[in-house]
Amino acid sequence: MSDWHIARGFRFAGLHCGIRPDPNRRDLALMVSDVPAAAAGVFTQNRVRAAPVRVCQERLPAADLRGVVICSGNANACTGQRGLDDARHMTAVAAEALGCRAEQVLVCSTGVIGRHLPMPQVESGIRAAVPQLTADTAALDAAARAILTTDTRIKVSTQLLTLDGAEVRLTGFAKGAAMIGPNMATMLAFVLTDAAVSPAGLVDIARRAAAQTFNCVSVEGHTSTNDTLLVLANGSAGQPLKGRSLTQFEEAATVVCGDLARAIAADAEGATHLIRIEVKGLRTDEEARRVARAVADSALVKTAIFGADPNWGRIVSAVGYCGVEFEEEHLSLWLGDFPLYESGTPQAFDSAAASAYLKNTRDISMRLRFTLGPGRCTFYTCDLGYEYVRLNADYTT
Amino acid sequence: MSDWHIARGFRFAGLHCGIRPDPNRRDLALMVSDVPAAAAGVFTQNRVRAAPVRVCQERLPAADLRGVVICSGNANACTGQRGLDDARHMTAVAAEALGCRAEQVLVCSTGVIGRHLPMPQVESGIRAAVPQLTADTAALDAAARAILTTDTRIKVSTQLLTLDGAEVRLTGFAKGAAMIGPNMATMLAFVLTDAAVSPAGLVDIARRAAAQTFNCVSVEGHTSTNDTLLVLANGSAGQPLKGRSLTQFEEAATVVCGDLARAIAADAEGATHLIRIEVKGLRTDEEARRVARAVADSALVKTAIFGADPNWGRIVSAVGYCGVEFEEEHLSLWLGDFPLYESGTPQAFDSAAASAYLKNTRDISMRLRFTLGPGRCTFYTCDLGYEYVRLNADYTT
Repeated sequence: MSDWHIARGFRFAGLHCGIRPDPNRRDLALMVSDVPAAAAGVFTQNRVRAAPVRVCQERLPAADLRGVVICSGNANACTGQRGLDDARHMTAVAAEALGCRAEQVLVCSTGVIGRHLPMPQVESGIRAAVPQLTADTAALDAAARAILTTDTRIKVSTQLLTLDGAEVRLTGFAKGAAMIGPNMATMLAFVLTDAAVSPAGLVDIARRAAAQTFNCVSVEGHTSTNDTLLVLANGSAGQPLKGRSLTQFEEAATVVCGDLARAIAADAEGATHLIRIEVKGLRTDEEARRVARAVADSALVKTAIFGADPNWGRIVSAVGYCGVEFEEEHLSLWLGDFPLYESGTPQAFDSAAASAYLKNTRDISMRLRFTLGPGRCTFYTCDLGYEYVRLNADYTT
Repeated sequence: MSDWHIARGFRFAGLHCGIRPDPNRRDLALMVSDVPAAAAGVFTQNRVRAAPVRVCQERLPAADLRGVVICSGNANACTGQRGLDDARHMTAVAAEALGCRAEQVLVCSTGVIGRHLPMPQVESGIRAAVPQLTADTAALDAAARAILTTDTRIKVSTQLLTLDGAEVRLTGFAKGAAMIGPNMATMLAFVLTDAAVSPAGLVDIARRAAAQTFNCVSVEGHTSTNDTLLVLANGSAGQPLKGRSLTQFEEAATVVCGDLARAIAADAEGATHLIRIEVKGLRTDEEARRVARAVADSALVKTAIFGADPNWGRIVSAVGYCGVEFEEEHLSLWLGDFPLYESGTPQAFDSAAASAYLKNTRDISMRLRFTLGPGRCTFYTCDLGYEYVRLNADYTT
């Protein structure tokens, strides 16, 4: 926390407003840019989009964004016109307190679907947050905490780099836990920077970074209604970036998004393993992503990893139904360093040692190699155990 | 069992040959038709097809089929050329004992993927099965038992009807449990009839019946390498069916397939609820099937049902990512008789009563109504609980 880099010109607050019954549980975050910021977003591809997602989409990209208000414990999704009115009203309340227009404020929500927000509490919370806004790591910590749902820890990633002679900071934070897509997730992620980047530039960077990171993470393949990545750039660090500097900035933003995406998979509900699935040798990157996702989303693969069972037939059979054309002889498979399947033929391996690897290693790797082309993808998921069932069998009631 | 109708001219056997360690556990079944039978099959759409699936596909449709040998405990999948040789050899051994050509025998396997069969045991088992073949219900019971894996009970459905003045019998049996697709499953299903139907007629009937039944069942959406439906018609009941009689026969075959498909979902690994998902009002039946399948495959929906949690937002959000275009106002949802969501607006409902319905009802229903057309689908799945995790976390090791 002490080594976090806070992008200049941003302030944060996180507090308990009353969406959640537990008064010790923060459920409302506010972040503001002291000067108008460029902003872009990437959103869920679910047809059912939560009210705050719709409001963000109406307002982005933007050149003069001032703030984002976020609540947790209630997704404000499937809430009809009233939900949309509530989401807009949240931005209006924040704008009034900040002295800007409602259109300069965005809104995000995460939590239970299909319930109306307790607006009196939310309104009071927003007003109470404004005087608490500060630019230090404690405030970022409070905001990062306030957006969590069943996450067990905050997810923060920051970068400091020098571009065109000026120090540039990127400050990212996110929440995940379950209903993780991909194509985003019940995932909220925010990347704030003091770099100067145009709204159009941010749109491209956000889309490309999300494709390589958040869209390569899955917990159970259930694309949420609320998935949102927002990128804000307020230019406090100097002149607009271009050319090589802009490329370096994009790389740093992708690193931040990658850190946050992996943190989401690692802290997925009930997860005991982070699973890295590296696929190479398909015709295209998209084919590689389909292969990886089919493996990542298979409950049979995930329960096998949970049980430290090197039951690799489940991996190969998941690849077989993902819709990508191949023959078995095109495929080889390693679990960690154990070669299990080579060019369509099962390999003799030490099953007890492979099981011990799964049991004793928190971060598992699977490598799938095809012989069909240059397409590749690295995808992250987690195992599926009793705790996922326990957490999800009794969430709303 | 006493009211099962055994199609005339078929005999069955089921015994322990030694694939499984437990000597009390049957693991090999044989069924024969005393006269050459027409035969057709429907198989997994997985690119990775088990060796026995490939052998069946080479030999079907057929006009002079004599037998089917089935083993459980080992899927003979991902086993390369040796697996293919083993599968063909199983048919040759059975053919020799039955006095027919190897091409007149089919083979199916189900169980662990990626292991070679213990062929000495399998060969002895096939030879031992031939003298045990009988046409009574005890023999059918033994065969139905010998094909099971983690199923907790046998699945048999039979029909007796009079067509063109002659009694016709259909005898179906199946196994399921997990890795249930749809687009078939680690599912083996057999429908035998003494009706006279041409191979070409059986091909059409098998395909249409599977589309409405086995392809509308899912446990965790993991399409298996071994899924097989075989339909055999040996004509012992009389003249070839045509016209209205053929249609009645197809209806009866679809009833048998539907019974078996529902039995598979109801007996899925660890399932405590059979979930019926009825979708109406989409543009096409295929759209309705996509909607139903997305709901059926969602781990979040399935864990909520397991936990008796009427968390309907998970249902609506699953619909949202299935790829079918709609707006929220086109959708209404009932859980049992509880209206939860109407034309895009959440409905007030008695959450405790809805939870009690889920807790106290073994067979749950969900109804999704769209306003976009005549397309419909009825799909079956099950809930996801601790027992599914337990069974699948430690299956091979």
